[in-house]
Amino acid sequence: MITGPDDVTAAVLAEVERAKEPRTRDLLAAAVRHLHAFVRETHLTEAEFQHIARIVARLGQLTSESHNEVVLIAGSLGVSSLVCLQNNGEGGVHETTANLMGPFWRAGSPREENGASIVRSPTPGDPIFVTGSVVDLDGRPVADAEVDVWNTSGEGLYENQDPRQADMNLRGRFITDQNGRFSFRSVKPAGYPIPVNGPVGDLLRAQGRHNMRPAHIHFLISKPGYKTQFSQVYSSDDPNLETDAQFGVTAALVGHYLGHDTPSEPAPDPGVTGTWYSLEHRFVIEPGDNSLPNPPITGKATGGVPVPEILERTP
Amino acid sequence: MITGPDDVTAAVLAEVERAKEPRTRDLLAAAVRHLHAFVRETHLTEAEFQHIARIVARLGQLTSESHNEVVLIAGSLGVSSLVCLQNNGEGGVHETTANLMGPFWRAGSPREENGASIVRSPTPGDPIFVTGSVVDLDGRPVADAEVDVWNTSGEGLYENQDPRQADMNLRGRFITDQNGRFSFRSVKPAGYPIPVNGPVGDLLRAQGRHNMRPAHIHFLISKPGYKTQFSQVYSSDDPNLETDAQFGVTAALVGHYLGHDTPSEPAPDPGVTGTWYSLEHRFVIEPGDNSLPNPPITGKATGGVPVPEILERTP
Repeated sequence: MITGPDDVTAAVLAEVERAKEPRTRDLLAAAVRHLHAFVRETHLTEAEFQHIARIVARLGQLTSESHNEVVLIAGSLGVSSLVCLQNNGEGGVHETTANLMGPFWRAGSPREENGASIVRSPTPGDPIFVTGSVVDLDGRPVADAEVDVWNTSGEGLYENQDPRQADMNLRGRFITDQNGRFSFRSVKPAGYPIPVNGPVGDLLRAQGRHNMRPAHIHFLISKPGYKTQFSQVYSSDDPNLETDAQFGVTAALVGHYLGHDTPSEPAPDPGVTGTWYSLEHRFVIEPGDNSLPNPPITGKATGGVPVPEILERTP
Repeated sequence: MITGPDDVTAAVLAEVERAKEPRTRDLLAAAVRHLHAFVRETHLTEAEFQHIARIVARLGQLTSESHNEVVLIAGSLGVSSLVCLQNNGEGGVHETTANLMGPFWRAGSPREENGASIVRSPTPGDPIFVTGSVVDLDGRPVADAEVDVWNTSGEGLYENQDPRQADMNLRGRFITDQNGRFSFRSVKPAGYPIPVNGPVGDLLRAQGRHNMRPAHIHFLISKPGYKTQFSQVYSSDDPNLETDAQFGVTAALVGHYLGHDTPSEPAPDPGVTGTWYSLEHRFVIEPGDNSLPNPPITGKATGGVPVPEILERTP
């Protein structure tokens, strides 16, 4: 029988030991040990416990088909990045181009030929010509891999958030050629603020952090025999590269977005005038499970153009 | 810049250090350290991370004005009990009669004179006559303390869950006399199952635990100058005393519910025939904050009599 705080953890762990499935047992035991250690180390008060319980409830209540506050706070606490990095690149043995899935991948974007444009309606932003290569752990090109790409407009909005953009604008799927290469044209993405109307906003405000993600293009690479890889390539010229609100930027994912000007530097598409960008990046995929997770969203949000709140980083 | 999993925790803790409020900073730093240590120790996979994120979302989505799945799982993992025990009785230095608030306290139950019945409509269950005393840490009687009591019917249902019971049935507020004593008549409560339609049910099933709470009466004791105390006194004859689904039972809270039979043992109320019970318990309150938390519920649930699901404990 429990008589004081010292007995509680042992009593709970004894019940955890009853779990028949070994992995469940191990995960529950670790969760109980760390939860209880957190309570003890911080000498958590009853009022603080109630406050944290309200925060957890709010995380779930704000999570819907088009927004996941739980995953957003996991990212804002670096948990998502840690999970990604310890499950790719042999847990840090070598650099990985794997990155966070993000909340805006949609399944079923149009299949395109290499070199095609994914700008499906007039979209603000400078033209960008992207060339990628997919290699295996030995550096050998991987042909016939599917590369699903998506990015924001030059205003920092994905098509699903922006009623002015055509369905599946700035989204498309490509197949690597015999040299493991793929290419497409889009607009140069802009960084954007993550939502701060819930616990994530409270967290960032408490720390004086801004809520920006640096500009990036998403890549989802899949081929049977290889582990499906979500990746993001960040703009080297973004001011928030070192302070990503989601701790997603790694050295392997800083892309060199090179600026060019016509007519001295003509674009691959001769119709382009003025400033345009090029980006070339190499992705390393690993042997593993080719399955895809469920997409986080299934379509376009209804309503007007969002006007997101932007937090300033305190000095 | 982050290059592998070893860098992530340091990057997140550096941001936590920006928090200006010292207690917020300490709580966040401890939360980050333990969350990351959990991920590392378990070598949490990406699929497991997504699964846990879905569980957290569900905890919030099931939480409403009349049910709190977050607090229920905190209890089912012993966190609520630990928080209570480390914040009362000087964190285990001496026994405490403090216990979990529970999800069913309602504010504003009727004020009654000592000895009055709180059975406000015909209610299944044997009559019980409860006498309590409230003392301070030196064992001196505390007069003029308010004692708010509530308990289930003999069917294990609180009035707010049971449309057959009158409003505020088996709820009432009493004031201790000059000897620190209070008394009332109710019906002997029954144990009851906690809801298992969400993550708490999945947790208990995975561990082969039942979902019963042993029978108990709730007490909420308050007086200016003393820390408000939530308490529960559990039935010594309950078969689930050692396996409370909420880890709430402590040695100090096992009440001796004594059975009696008329006519050889007449009840305090001469109208009582057959079996009746008596209970006497002593509560120790401490100096501290007299404030009350917000009540977890505000009224009666609508709908029919609930038929809760009961899980069997596996051998």
